[in-house]
Amino acid sequence: METTKKHNWRTKVHEIIYEADTPAGKLFDIVLLILIIASIILVMLESVNSIDEKYHKLLLIGEWFVTIFFTIEYILRIVSVKKPTKYIFSMFGIIDFLSTIPMYIAYFFVGGAQALVVLRALRLLRVFRILKLARYLGASNQLKNSIIASRVKILVFLFAVMVSSVVFGTIMYLVEGEANGFTNIPKSVYWCIVTLTTVGFGDIAPQTALGQFITTIIMVLGYGIIAVPTGIVSAEYARAVTDDKKNEDNATETEPIITIVPINTQSCSSCLAEKHLDGAKYCYKCGEGLHHE
Amino acid sequence: METTKKHNWRTKVHEIIYEADTPAGKLFDIVLLILIIASIILVMLESVNSIDEKYHKLLLIGEWFVTIFFTIEYILRIVSVKKPTKYIFSMFGIIDFLSTIPMYIAYFFVGGAQALVVLRALRLLRVFRILKLARYLGASNQLKNSIIASRVKILVFLFAVMVSSVVFGTIMYLVEGEANGFTNIPKSVYWCIVTLTTVGFGDIAPQTALGQFITTIIMVLGYGIIAVPTGIVSAEYARAVTDDKKNEDNATETEPIITIVPINTQSCSSCLAEKHLDGAKYCYKCGEGLHHE
Amino acid sequence: METTKKHNWRTKVHEIIYEADTPAGKLFDIVLLILIIASIILVMLESVNSIDEKYHKLLLIGEWFVTIFFTIEYILRIVSVKKPTKYIFSMFGIIDFLSTIPMYIAYFFVGGAQALVVLRALRLLRVFRILKLARYLGASNQLKNSIIASRVKILVFLFAVMVSSVVFGTIMYLVEGEANGFTNIPKSVYWCIVTLTTVGFGDIAPQTALGQFITTIIMVLGYGIIAVPTGIVSAEYARAVTDDKKNEDNATETEPIITIVPINTQSCSSCLAEKHLDGAKYCYKCGEGLHHE
Amino acid sequence: METTKKHNWRTKVHEIIYEADTPAGKLFDIVLLILIIASIILVMLESVNSIDEKYHKLLLIGEWFVTIFFTIEYILRIVSVKKPTKYIFSMFGIIDFLSTIPMYIAYFFVGGAQALVVLRALRLLRVFRILKLARYLGASNQLKNSIIASRVKILVFLFAVMVSSVVFGTIMYLVEGEANGFTNIPKSVYWCIVTLTTVGFGDIAPQTALGQFITTIIMVLGYGIIAVPTGIVSAEYARAVTDDKKNEDNATETEPIITIVPINTQSCSSCLAEKHLDGAKYCYKCGEGLHHE
Repeated sequence: METTKKHNWRTKVHEIIYEADTPAGKLFDIVLLILIIASIILVMLESVNSIDEKYHKLLLIGEWFVTIFFTIEYILRIVSVKKPTKYIFSMFGIIDFLSTIPMYIAYFFVGGAQALVVLRALRLLRVFRILKLARYLGASNQLKNSIIASRVKILVFLFAVMVSSVVFGTIMYLVEGEANGFTNIPKSVYWCIVTLTTVGFGDIAPQTALGQFITTIIMVLGYGIIAVPTGIVSAEYARAVTDDKKNEDNATETEPIITIVPINTQSCSSCLAEKHLDGAKYCYKCGEGLHHE
Repeated sequence: METTKKHNWRTKVHEIIYEADTPAGKLFDIVLLILIIASIILVMLESVNSIDEKYHKLLLIGEWFVTIFFTIEYILRIVSVKKPTKYIFSMFGIIDFLSTIPMYIAYFFVGGAQALVVLRALRLLRVFRILKLARYLGASNQLKNSIIASRVKILVFLFAVMVSSVVFGTIMYLVEGEANGFTNIPKSVYWCIVTLTTVGFGDIAPQTALGQFITTIIMVLGYGIIAVPTGIVSAEYARAVTDDKKNEDNATETEPIITIVPINTQSCSSCLAEKHLDGAKYCYKCGEGLHHE
Repeated sequence: METTKKHNWRTKVHEIIYEADTPAGKLFDIVLLILIIASIILVMLESVNSIDEKYHKLLLIGEWFVTIFFTIEYILRIVSVKKPTKYIFSMFGIIDFLSTIPMYIAYFFVGGAQALVVLRALRLLRVFRILKLARYLGASNQLKNSIIASRVKILVFLFAVMVSSVVFGTIMYLVEGEANGFTNIPKSVYWCIVTLTTVGFGDIAPQTALGQFITTIIMVLGYGIIAVPTGIVSAEYARAVTDDKKNEDNATETEPIITIVPINTQSCSSCLAEKHLDGAKYCYKCGEGLHHE
Repeated sequence: METTKKHNWRTKVHEIIYEADTPAGKLFDIVLLILIIASIILVMLESVNSIDEKYHKLLLIGEWFVTIFFTIEYILRIVSVKKPTKYIFSMFGIIDFLSTIPMYIAYFFVGGAQALVVLRALRLLRVFRILKLARYLGASNQLKNSIIASRVKILVFLFAVMVSSVVFGTIMYLVEGEANGFTNIPKSVYWCIVTLTTVGFGDIAPQTALGQFITTIIMVLGYGIIAVPTGIVSAEYARAVTDDKKNEDNATETEPIITIVPINTQSCSSCLAEKHLDGAKYCYKCGEGLHHE
């Protein structure tokens, strides 16, 4: 493919689908965005029995409409790139494929009751279409960098949560016992994480005085532990922001004209007063009109 | 409109109602503040059956007293500004109107049982009078700026919460099923947000071992996610504070490039513009004279 | 009272009770500390029926022992200060008085069953003895300053929580209604604060789809709002710490010998190697013994 | 002990078990890591009745395999260090011993039903093997330092939580009373901590209007209090990070007053001292030669 053949249909399609600079590209993106969200809502509504019974046909039509659109999109994405295999096995390629296929499988392989269960699970895969939205996610680099920078410390924190939960979970299993809902250690550890993260469902709750005392320690510990990841992300993020700013400052070091209050640099042609609010039409001092270029 | 007609009654009323610099203006503000809070308490008490039965008449009298005061206030606000339509369709104009009207509607349109339900809902609108308090809210600019500065990142965070909830909600619906309270995907997603935000009502709780294991992941994730907005607001706020301080330091040292401008509480009687510089004699927006005692 | 009569018994008592520098003063403080905690535990245990039935006499003896000690302490505090009225009406004077009096009232005014209820409430006042501990609280000034500095912003935040709760509480009362536990607006507002603060008892939980959707908004809002006070305290505290440090730095600017890694300034007398860990007895390079002054 | 006997079997074993620089040492560490996690999972599964009934024999075999491995490891650790008593009574020595012994006790002292309960508790001690993982925890020094630096403030915060809980717990006991689940003060204090830390199980919940109003205060207080430890850790951590960075900057610019010293993973075969400088040839504590390949 030569670069002289720039404006053949393939390039055009590529421009529309992969880029958002042209009006057609923008329109495509908006349509896709709406359809993704619509398809998520469809899957959700389908799972509500009362709605599914009433509007089954409507939901099915909607679902086929979305599926066919996604199928066309998937095919166009493949044909318009120069290395289709690269797209197909990329994360987005796989998500796009999984977003399309369940309806076809459901259509062609309708079997016994057993198969229906598997099928139902498969069709719910369509909810993962929401991940297609990631394309439109303006990645916040500062955020990403601060999380990556604090990666090791977050793992240490998760390790601390895990160890605390196992140790306290075992103790609670011994103290409360099976009679009070702590039927086994894994369940006890689960309860411990519920408590440590301050979720506190209340489906299992300590009944003995000693159990409640230990719970107190777990809760205060959990309440304190949350300070750690927050402090880390906060500090790392602050550093990322400061670094960015420092670079910026260095770049514009020569002319330090920074305005955080919306005041413009105009001076009144009549009384020479300065510090007019941005957008002011008249001088606040003498009432004379202010001129804008 | 001449600036010589400075002290007519309209200007006087404008001063009392819209400004808080004169003793009369301050008194008006305090009375209004008390009445707003009193009216909220009235609406709340009315909804408590046992109290409403006992003191129905007293509550009704109180409500009419508040309503008439608010009606007078509303009318005065309209007549004292030069462009009434601008006030009427401003946010505060609409809130003021909605705070006054329900009692009149309830009085004139008492109909059948069906109408009463609508009416009851309408009368509860009076609780939104609490928004009138926003007038007295000394806006913390540093706080507002730090929230605005982290706007995009907060949206990214909300998006992450939403996507996680949809994905995990669907998985939990599959794992736990309708028998354990996860009757449909929307409800499952709702439960997922309850867990992710560490609220944990406990009205729905996972029963299967696998469900509890996935719940563990959701909780730790939620526990970690909270670090992100906290870290962002914290860092942005720290930056806002530091910037302010730096500017202050610079101001005393070299040239005052940036100034935190003293703005007074006046609003122009002609165009309702606010945020006039202290000592300003003319409205920066319409050139109308500003009144000082 | 002359300053020449320094070492009379009054001054001695004052030294022991109010100061902690002498051995006797330290001993007094430790005894007081233990008795305060012991008295709190006594009050708590008394409220447990099963324990009170068994050990009623023992608890009573303990309580009288504590009360008599506190009485003596209270009298000594009064006689050993120069302006007794000042102490009596100070916060600690009042706490000390309220810590002592309930047992005497309970002893002298034993009346009918009705009086017993009031009495019981009164005796529980003894639990406030815990506030006597505040004397031993090394006040963290940085912490206090950072909270004072962010006072206004915390009030704005509390106002936001209050307004959100009233508005959402009323909406939930309308949406869910009395049938689902939202019996009146105050209760609905209470539920709203339970949700907004991510406590989530689960004694009341939304049942309708719309109610659950609104709950989702409240929870995410509450999850986000917590970032605000945290961010503020964090930033203000960071500033307080930085300010402190800057002052410190200025004070010791001439000799910037700061060591955060415990390495000493010794050099080996044999091979002249430096950077020995603090407390090292032998050179890490040549094995020669290191000499300490 | 001469440094000429460098490569006897003892030194070899020491290298493999205590260090992670050689391939054999690394392999040993990985095997140990897997076995620790496997043994934790074994203990957990054993506590699940349905699994224990089915796979009792398999679990027992697995448990004996792990126990024998840990026994050999324990013996090798003792024989390969020069001062075994120091290792035996070190924290890791005790953990290693407690990880090994329960199975032997369970095997030799099988007694009556009463003994079985004690035994069961004892065998659960094996879950503490998870603490053996601490060896592999790359300690985050910045994190540790920031927690140590804010130690006093965290204690003040815990004291505030304790005092608030006791005071509010007693008030709630008075207000709600035994009829609504607040049966005694300790339970009421427990409930108060559950609420203050925003866990909110919901097993006990206020029923009276006054009780719900006080609960509102407790919740908002708890929601605000969490800002304090978070703010402290955040600020202290930020300072630790900034200090590190500043030191780095200074190091490249002028004289390296402070150095972050590269410390290796070796431990002295004679006195078990760790944290040797990279390239150190002799133990800084006892002067014994350190072994390198």
